[in-house]
Amino acid sequence: MREVAIIGIGQTKVEEQWDKSLREIAGEAVLLALQESSLERVESIFVGNMMSGSANRQQHLGSYIADWVGMRFAEGYHIEAACSSGAAAFRSAVMAVASGSVDSAISVGVEKMTDSPGAEITSQLATASDADWEADMGLSFVALNALIMQRYLHEYHWQKDDFAGFSINSHANAAHNPFARFQDPISMISYQKAAMIADPINLMDASPMGDGAAAAVIIPLDLIKKRGGQKLVKVVASSAATDTIAAHSRRDPIWLAAAESSSRQAFTQAGINPEDIGVFELHDAFSIMAALSLEASGFAERGQGPRAAIENQICPKGRIPISTRGGLKARGHPVGATGMYQIIEVVQQLRGEAGETQVERPIYGMTQNIGGSGSNIITHILKAE
Amino acid sequence: MREVAIIGIGQTKVEEQWDKSLREIAGEAVLLALQESSLERVESIFVGNMMSGSANRQQHLGSYIADWVGMRFAEGYHIEAACSSGAAAFRSAVMAVASGSVDSAISVGVEKMTDSPGAEITSQLATASDADWEADMGLSFVALNALIMQRYLHEYHWQKDDFAGFSINSHANAAHNPFARFQDPISMISYQKAAMIADPINLMDASPMGDGAAAAVIIPLDLIKKRGGQKLVKVVASSAATDTIAAHSRRDPIWLAAAESSSRQAFTQAGINPEDIGVFELHDAFSIMAALSLEASGFAERGQGPRAAIENQICPKGRIPISTRGGLKARGHPVGATGMYQIIEVVQQLRGEAGETQVERPIYGMTQNIGGSGSNIITHILKAE
Repeated sequence: MREVAIIGIGQTKVEEQWDKSLREIAGEAVLLALQESSLERVESIFVGNMMSGSANRQQHLGSYIADWVGMRFAEGYHIEAACSSGAAAFRSAVMAVASGSVDSAISVGVEKMTDSPGAEITSQLATASDADWEADMGLSFVALNALIMQRYLHEYHWQKDDFAGFSINSHANAAHNPFARFQDPISMISYQKAAMIADPINLMDASPMGDGAAAAVIIPLDLIKKRGGQKLVKVVASSAATDTIAAHSRRDPIWLAAAESSSRQAFTQAGINPEDIGVFELHDAFSIMAALSLEASGFAERGQGPRAAIENQICPKGRIPISTRGGLKARGHPVGATGMYQIIEVVQQLRGEAGETQVERPIYGMTQNIGGSGSNIITHILKAE
Repeated sequence: MREVAIIGIGQTKVEEQWDKSLREIAGEAVLLALQESSLERVESIFVGNMMSGSANRQQHLGSYIADWVGMRFAEGYHIEAACSSGAAAFRSAVMAVASGSVDSAISVGVEKMTDSPGAEITSQLATASDADWEADMGLSFVALNALIMQRYLHEYHWQKDDFAGFSINSHANAAHNPFARFQDPISMISYQKAAMIADPINLMDASPMGDGAAAAVIIPLDLIKKRGGQKLVKVVASSAATDTIAAHSRRDPIWLAAAESSSRQAFTQAGINPEDIGVFELHDAFSIMAALSLEASGFAERGQGPRAAIENQICPKGRIPISTRGGLKARGHPVGATGMYQIIEVVQQLRGEAGETQVERPIYGMTQNIGGSGSNIITHILKAE
């Protein structure tokens, strides 16, 4: 397996981009990543996206985006794994280059959600769950996560406010990220006053939708060395695991078994331990998911995820910095793009380009993208060289 | 790049499977392929599908199918490239195993179209074209292909009936394939009497929809050799190319430039020429596409595709046998599954398991799956050992 590295990244701001189409948003991120890579084109493009077929009435995004950015004849595919589509596209690009099948690839995550009305988008998001046994029963995604959080509070005797630190950290970090959807810090009081959506999840526990795209260019490590001069970020681990699509089919719905599996594989591939990770961009679509991801990946004891937030271990100067550019909660969660935002944010950290929220000299950075209610979990570890 | 081979295949009949859900159809093909491989599970599953998000209100097919077939913790993704989703999933599986990232993978193509009413499915199929400049103007997929065929008749002075041989061959072959949607031969008279859909495309020029799934298990060649005894089909070429998503953006809309690109790459990878191909499962979604695919891939002169049908070169005993199990036209075209049906039908031929339509001792077999109106073309060459 050839070693691969990232030589260019690009992103758009996450916001309601009413004036731009899906291809304009994706194209902007792709062209920025190509520009930073000093490349005009790559051999393959992998587009991570969840809902364009229904939300934008446009499938076939591989050809669609390759055409738009002037890469006719490049190969192109659309990769989907619900909310983990971005990381799935990145992993696909890594495998394409690692296999030797191509010498350059771009992975772009994109979602254009504002083309669909609110009720319709809620229904489309539910296609990530089990259509027959969850969505058809009226369970929206926030409701599914509320059931999980409710059970967690019951089992481990936490109070709802114990989760506030996750949102406060994300918003504090997003205030320094010009690409974030929300750039104002929030306080404990605003968390406590936030409107309830699906008890116990309130508005400040839930990540916002948005339109956005993020992209990265990948080439084999030996070719990068020949190029010289560029800041090098190696992909040292790429792994994924699924779990049952329905949350109720899991013996322990408040333990992310697929995160445990994929993060263990990732640590083995990289030859490191959780203590070696300097920054962890996790999937805080809901604050309960941040806690569960920390636990299953070995950064917190089982049932003790909230403690990391309460004790301020998750801030940029803490033991395990998470959501350093705002996370899903405040940078925003354009579904299929999120996994790619995580990747490029870790690249920024490893290059020392994270500004006010820069973590001190990280060597390894990790991303974890979650599809569904924990049914598809993809972990990557990147390393600064 | 590790060499990879196919050790097991499975398929369902293409038909209107009203009584089965998408996961039951896909699961049937996957379990048959695993059974033939003497494996209980694989490390990765790649699901080729175009429209489940809108037609079945179910995305996230990687986790969904892995769960259903009892492969919890396997990694799983949904790969989409419109009508070439099946081949895209197969190519993804090939790259995953070739990269060394995993030692076993399954690729399954599935489409469950009967959940959607007719008008709605026509609109969903149009999401393979350019939403802004083709679909929104009212161009359905058959209309797009009719424009291409009309231009072809005009440029090269063929008569519509000159295309009859493609449909007659497909239906004659499907009569011997128990998995085919239509198993009755047709005559020149029934072709001539067929109802016009979009002039010049009549009912006998167009492939039928249907529900179905086909799957193949891939492992590294060296592991297969250790297993011993099994009939070996190597993947000796895998390549793909996109073209502009809109047909009108191409300088020459009656030449499949992406097919030329991907088939040339494939011949180079395999180190062979078109003359070495013993069987060619091409993408006869419409008879015009069969002609264009033969031309762009080097099996017919430019503008001379219909001659191959008229001169009976395409039948199982002919110079370049195509659609030997019925092709899209008569085996049926469950969109995202089609590319995988092509793969397993070539495997059947190379193993000598194609019954009445067996080609005489083929060594190399080729598949070509076309997404959109020629905007994503994926070519594979398999070899019997």
